[in-house]
Amino acid sequence: MIQAISLDKYYRLLNIGPTVLVSSKHEEKENVMAAAWAGIVDFYPTPKVSVILDKSSYTRELIEKSGYFALQIPVARQAEMVLALGEISGKTHPDKLRTCKTELFYREHDNIPLVKGCAGWILCERLPQTDNEQQHDLFIGKVIACYADDEIFDGHWKFETADKGWRTLHYVAGGHFYTIGDPLIVEKN
Amino acid sequence: MIQAISLDKYYRLLNIGPTVLVSSKHEEKENVMAAAWAGIVDFYPTPKVSVILDKSSYTRELIEKSGYFALQIPVARQAEMVLALGEISGKTHPDKLRTCKTELFYREHDNIPLVKGCAGWILCERLPQTDNEQQHDLFIGKVIACYADDEIFDGHWKFETADKGWRTLHYVAGGHFYTIGDPLIVEKN
Repeated sequence: MIQAISLDKYYRLLNIGPTVLVSSKHEEKENVMAAAWAGIVDFYPTPKVSVILDKSSYTRELIEKSGYFALQIPVARQAEMVLALGEISGKTHPDKLRTCKTELFYREHDNIPLVKGCAGWILCERLPQTDNEQQHDLFIGKVIACYADDEIFDGHWKFETADKGWRTLHYVAGGHFYTIGDPLIVEKN
Repeated sequence: MIQAISLDKYYRLLNIGPTVLVSSKHEEKENVMAAAWAGIVDFYPTPKVSVILDKSSYTRELIEKSGYFALQIPVARQAEMVLALGEISGKTHPDKLRTCKTELFYREHDNIPLVKGCAGWILCERLPQTDNEQQHDLFIGKVIACYADDEIFDGHWKFETADKGWRTLHYVAGGHFYTIGDPLIVEKN
């Protein structure tokens, strides 16, 4: 079941470095792209994330217009979709989401489309940064809400007990991912 | 054996989202810290990385003074050291590196200390960005050289065949890591 995650725990979704999906909507246009270059900027007092968005990307255009986006964490059973979402452009393929078999849903923010089947969703308001966006393609978002599927994340990851289809994806190149592996716990002194 | 990696492949070290170690040196002072919040900004034409460095960190101070740092990718058998490097400050513990049993070496740049035993090393020149550094603690570095241990990375990761002690670390919180897991290859159409 999808549950709200308190904003002091959202960073744990991104901390392990998964490949993400970036989604946005402006007017009636929705789009989703895959991105390996997303991360955390801060978790307190203002939770913030970063993501690199190429100037050619349609999702970037929607984010610039709407001011909102989501980062979501896809999982192993979605790998084929994730690769397709990274290779097809919504600019040249208006039916990209149907081609990629990507189903969307909405929570409280009706201009932030979310991809079904992911482990978690981080809803963000873009903090406009002209220099970063123009020079580095670097977008920063303030986290405004976070959700996760409690089959796999409830503030803690449940990889140890969940089905392997729930493993996060870590992209290398050329269709080649690794999934997250075993826990390694270091006892603190 | 440690081999140079061409700069069009360096991003594969970071693409899978591992926890990193950040190292720097100014005059005779060397330091290393652990960081989960590092990533890629660009790979062509100018390879660039980003890393979040808290204002209280001693490594940040050394980077501000020297203008150079390295991101390196530690592995499972170094987990205890990585946790310690994230918890002890070089500001209050001048003997931090000895306490953490961290051994350094140098390649061509004698002001960029590198941590022995890692999978790969990304040597960077800081691109000063006053707003990012002050507002977001966000540092951007231009990649000037890259090395990897060919036991585990030669432009491709070798997790499938290497010893499990070579698995990358993906930090959650409280001493709890995951190591990278199995490959998942999606055939492109």
